[in-house]
Amino acid sequence: MVVVAILAAGRGTRMKSHLPKVLHSLGGRSLVERVLESVEPLSPSRRIVIVGYQAEEVKAAMQSIPSLEFVEQTVQLGTGHAIQQLLPHLEGYTGDLLVLNGDLPLVRAQTLKKLLQTHQENHNAATILTAHLPEPKGYGRVFCNGENVVQQIVEDKDCTAAQRQNRRINAGVYCFRWQDLARVLPHLEANNAQKEYYLTDAVTQVGQVMAVDVEDYQEILGINDRLQLAAAYEILQQRVKEKWMIAGVTLIDPNSITIDETVKLHTDVIIEPQTHLRGNTVIQTGSRIGPGTLIENSQLGENVTVQYSVVTDSIVQAKSRIGPYAHLRGQAQVGTGCRVGNFVELKNTKLGDRTNVAHLSYLGDTTTGTKVNIGAGTITANYDGVNKHPTKIGDRTATGSNSVLVAPVTLGDDVYVAAGSAVTEDVPNDSLVIARSRQVVKPGWRKKQKSQE
Amino acid sequence: MVVVAILAAGRGTRMKSHLPKVLHSLGGRSLVERVLESVEPLSPSRRIVIVGYQAEEVKAAMQSIPSLEFVEQTVQLGTGHAIQQLLPHLEGYTGDLLVLNGDLPLVRAQTLKKLLQTHQENHNAATILTAHLPEPKGYGRVFCNGENVVQQIVEDKDCTAAQRQNRRINAGVYCFRWQDLARVLPHLEANNAQKEYYLTDAVTQVGQVMAVDVEDYQEILGINDRLQLAAAYEILQQRVKEKWMIAGVTLIDPNSITIDETVKLHTDVIIEPQTHLRGNTVIQTGSRIGPGTLIENSQLGENVTVQYSVVTDSIVQAKSRIGPYAHLRGQAQVGTGCRVGNFVELKNTKLGDRTNVAHLSYLGDTTTGTKVNIGAGTITANYDGVNKHPTKIGDRTATGSNSVLVAPVTLGDDVYVAAGSAVTEDVPNDSLVIARSRQVVKPGWRKKQKSQE
Amino acid sequence: MVVVAILAAGRGTRMKSHLPKVLHSLGGRSLVERVLESVEPLSPSRRIVIVGYQAEEVKAAMQSIPSLEFVEQTVQLGTGHAIQQLLPHLEGYTGDLLVLNGDLPLVRAQTLKKLLQTHQENHNAATILTAHLPEPKGYGRVFCNGENVVQQIVEDKDCTAAQRQNRRINAGVYCFRWQDLARVLPHLEANNAQKEYYLTDAVTQVGQVMAVDVEDYQEILGINDRLQLAAAYEILQQRVKEKWMIAGVTLIDPNSITIDETVKLHTDVIIEPQTHLRGNTVIQTGSRIGPGTLIENSQLGENVTVQYSVVTDSIVQAKSRIGPYAHLRGQAQVGTGCRVGNFVELKNTKLGDRTNVAHLSYLGDTTTGTKVNIGAGTITANYDGVNKHPTKIGDRTATGSNSVLVAPVTLGDDVYVAAGSAVTEDVPNDSLVIARSRQVVKPGWRKKQKSQE
Repeated sequence: MVVVAILAAGRGTRMKSHLPKVLHSLGGRSLVERVLESVEPLSPSRRIVIVGYQAEEVKAAMQSIPSLEFVEQTVQLGTGHAIQQLLPHLEGYTGDLLVLNGDLPLVRAQTLKKLLQTHQENHNAATILTAHLPEPKGYGRVFCNGENVVQQIVEDKDCTAAQRQNRRINAGVYCFRWQDLARVLPHLEANNAQKEYYLTDAVTQVGQVMAVDVEDYQEILGINDRLQLAAAYEILQQRVKEKWMIAGVTLIDPNSITIDETVKLHTDVIIEPQTHLRGNTVIQTGSRIGPGTLIENSQLGENVTVQYSVVTDSIVQAKSRIGPYAHLRGQAQVGTGCRVGNFVELKNTKLGDRTNVAHLSYLGDTTTGTKVNIGAGTITANYDGVNKHPTKIGDRTATGSNSVLVAPVTLGDDVYVAAGSAVTEDVPNDSLVIARSRQVVKPGWRKKQKSQE
Repeated sequence: MVVVAILAAGRGTRMKSHLPKVLHSLGGRSLVERVLESVEPLSPSRRIVIVGYQAEEVKAAMQSIPSLEFVEQTVQLGTGHAIQQLLPHLEGYTGDLLVLNGDLPLVRAQTLKKLLQTHQENHNAATILTAHLPEPKGYGRVFCNGENVVQQIVEDKDCTAAQRQNRRINAGVYCFRWQDLARVLPHLEANNAQKEYYLTDAVTQVGQVMAVDVEDYQEILGINDRLQLAAAYEILQQRVKEKWMIAGVTLIDPNSITIDETVKLHTDVIIEPQTHLRGNTVIQTGSRIGPGTLIENSQLGENVTVQYSVVTDSIVQAKSRIGPYAHLRGQAQVGTGCRVGNFVELKNTKLGDRTNVAHLSYLGDTTTGTKVNIGAGTITANYDGVNKHPTKIGDRTATGSNSVLVAPVTLGDDVYVAAGSAVTEDVPNDSLVIARSRQVVKPGWRKKQKSQE
Repeated sequence: MVVVAILAAGRGTRMKSHLPKVLHSLGGRSLVERVLESVEPLSPSRRIVIVGYQAEEVKAAMQSIPSLEFVEQTVQLGTGHAIQQLLPHLEGYTGDLLVLNGDLPLVRAQTLKKLLQTHQENHNAATILTAHLPEPKGYGRVFCNGENVVQQIVEDKDCTAAQRQNRRINAGVYCFRWQDLARVLPHLEANNAQKEYYLTDAVTQVGQVMAVDVEDYQEILGINDRLQLAAAYEILQQRVKEKWMIAGVTLIDPNSITIDETVKLHTDVIIEPQTHLRGNTVIQTGSRIGPGTLIENSQLGENVTVQYSVVTDSIVQAKSRIGPYAHLRGQAQVGTGCRVGNFVELKNTKLGDRTNVAHLSYLGDTTTGTKVNIGAGTITANYDGVNKHPTKIGDRTATGSNSVLVAPVTLGDDVYVAAGSAVTEDVPNDSLVIARSRQVVKPGWRKKQKSQE
């Protein structure tokens, strides 16, 4: 049994932000949400977030997460002091306590599992996560015997030159047998320059302590400023992109592409440069996306192409071609074999199969049949200034260039709308509809105009 | 005299693809096409591709390449077995055989020339390509005497600790005196865990073997998965971009730019970030392209600027300015000193010199004279649902905003089209043409409407 | 007192350019302008640029810089010869001379200050800038005693193997007591393969010489070809981006972003990938810019979002949302809480607060009131082929889809323009204006048409 405590009370001064540090977003989710996800596979019996600086804002941001508990640390007197706040909340608890910082977004669940397992199998009083850093400067060094039993933890500044050679450092992730820790916690002292109570001091007093190495030291990158935030994003992205390349997705210039962890890609998808895939997006086999494209919360079928476009909250079925410079949003649905061309916006609009909207159109709240051809510059006037109204267009209907369909309006099957017409009333099947003036030519007009100049 | 054999029978399982590995595209050409290009300067008397897995698909993809031969290896029993399939096809042949893998897209022609030359000048039975790898793990090590005569080739797993220190590896590119190889080939044995016949075994049996080092070890990167495909693309791109920078082209943020090897750039061209140049594109001196632009199979004259646009299969003459957000395609031709502005699509359209199409227009199948001004929102209705029709516009003619030109239609010189007009009939020179309704104002309408709400 | 001499007479052959090397642009400013900026904090009494190759072009490009002097070196016989040209211009001068190459754009002002200070405090005859290079090949090595007094400067090619181990190199930036240098200059000899007069030879003859190390060796990167130009840009960009990240700006994928040094960003601005910020741009707190966006010479208020858009010379006030695919230019001003959507161009147009221009519009020379709604496809016809005319739109007015406002024209408050109308005359408050034809339906037309096919 394990209770998880997440330290989220600090100010995070170096972020230079109005937002509490742990709420900063990393690839669509906040730092502390990522920490919560990493502990999920441990099935913790309770998850307690220790809040302090901007506590209300932190709590508000996480209020939708079920059964999360918050404990307030009203003054910030160090990690030991933070965990002391748990004493009244964990009275009589006989299991283990896992302590993590809320700014540690890259730690893997399997790493925490290994930490917990080692802790429990060896009946340790405490088990700490360690890493071998290429640049250990600034970190406390951990000295173990051959069985990974911790002999000593020495702060960087207290290290001898010889000790400083040790690259094994304390990652600040701890597993405690709670009852051992609870016994020690009240007696911590703040004998240091910062006058803070350190949890590390407790580690050395609880009994047998072991160290567990993290496999990849990048996991323990803490986020203290925006440079580290950017570095963490790059590491995360590398993980995600490698995963998809190994799974059979071609990324052309992967460094220029970003893919949220929530995205699902099938084999033989090709992603071109400068493309961003976000949220609950699924792209099926044979599709080619980009360059310069953003797809968010959208489903794309097989063999779809999207180039230089933005697609959000929409569905595109097989073999349809989107872009360049198209914008699909608001639950747009594009059928199979459609073409949505340049400077076209679809909002809450459903296109039947093999329908073309090739140029300079806005379709809002519109439903079309199959094999419809929407002429260049056709616009649905779906908004009367107060409400939005629907437009319905039948099979094989074609609209002329620069026509306006004033909603609510229904065009039947096989209708033809003359170029430049404003359609305000319903049109039956097989009709030509025309709403424009006859052409008047005034010969010699330009010459007259010139002579006046 | 040299015959080239390309091994293209393998499955390429790690690509996780429906497509045979050698058909995967790397910068616009398939892996095996790149290998064929690298042997071209050797003027091989025959080029034989050994196919197996998805043989029909591989053959179909390459059928347009003249005088290419295919030999089928119906079961895949190793590289030695693959070359055994050539025996009936090369009976009596007295020249040399160059063997390459079809997944080796980065090897340079000059490297192969050096291999062949060394082979022939030294009257070797076989000559193999070697490389000095920083990370030789997994490769067979090649041990030579001081004259580059091969003494031993040892597989990685069979190496002693001392042998493993040798970083000179077998790149898997071989040159054989065919008659020596043909004598040995039938007697190869499959004495190994995979029960495969290895061509390497033949190497040690044919007679004097020499090794030739590749200059740049990146040349021998084989493509086994999409990570290696991405790595190869990066290497290729670095080659191309360095070439153009040395030749006098400014690349701003070169890492974000991609340039096909087929593109030609003149000095003092400036390429801005996130720009992609593809196919048979030529850009002349003083032009500035990007950011965020794709140019494909297009010719751009001197001092052209293109920003955030897509230009395919088109010609833009000197001093014209394109974009942002313009789309030229389908043999568009833009004269000198033109401006094609935002949200403009030109398809199979020819603009005379000093013509402007500045905003929100679609011109299809259109020819304009010089100094024409196409008003914002002007659209050519070139498609009647069955056929495409042409539009002709004379010199100095101007179209008003949101006008439609219903093709086929011809506007003379010095014509002025009133805003909002639909032009359906030809217009003589010097005329004003107007096709719209008079304005009707209903005062107080909004107040009434409000009182009804 | 210090006079600055900048060497800008060389041809820069390896740039392969029609433009003189020192005029090449690096992040919006030429190389030589950057050198001039780096000496500015020294408050030099005179700044003399020594020009030669394409002298007129160099002088023309810099003519707007006040009190800059040019001295011509008509033949290029080396750096020593270049400085000899100053003799007639500095007769009787008793201060110091700082000599820099015009292709040294990354040197920091603080480095030059330290050089000058060391020079003056130690009463040196000359003081030279040195750097410790990881790859010193090709550079002259500087040998000093423990007090940084130069003992010897040896050209790379003249170095013994032992001397070549010294990584401290001559950066080619010199500070001289002018009277000492002036005494030596006339006696320089061209005893070398190039038959050139080297300033380095003067250094060893003037008296006590000291060396000052540059802190970051990247500062002394000289630009000789476009590869070095690209490398310098990357270094510059890294400086700028790190500065803003430390200051509290989030950059998502910083490698894909470029930010001119002239840009000002407030804390908690978020910059998405592939975004470029240029010129005198200021972005206030909470704004989110990108992906794929170019902002140039523009002011953006708090909590503005801009996505896939180009904004130049414009102002956007708080909480407004721009894009995707919007283009603001020519002093556009967007009020607070506005929305400028896809395929919209604003040129010299002022939008009142809470005004929407959501789709496919061009507004030029237009002023709107507050809470205006511009319908999709609305276009202002502001150009009659000769002049531009203004459009004025009152508060709460709404235009229908595909309407044209033919300027000069004024629409009052609470006006409603019917879809597809061309408005040519002023419209009073509260009016409905309509200028389109009634709809005519020709039933069965499509069937007839089909029967004729």
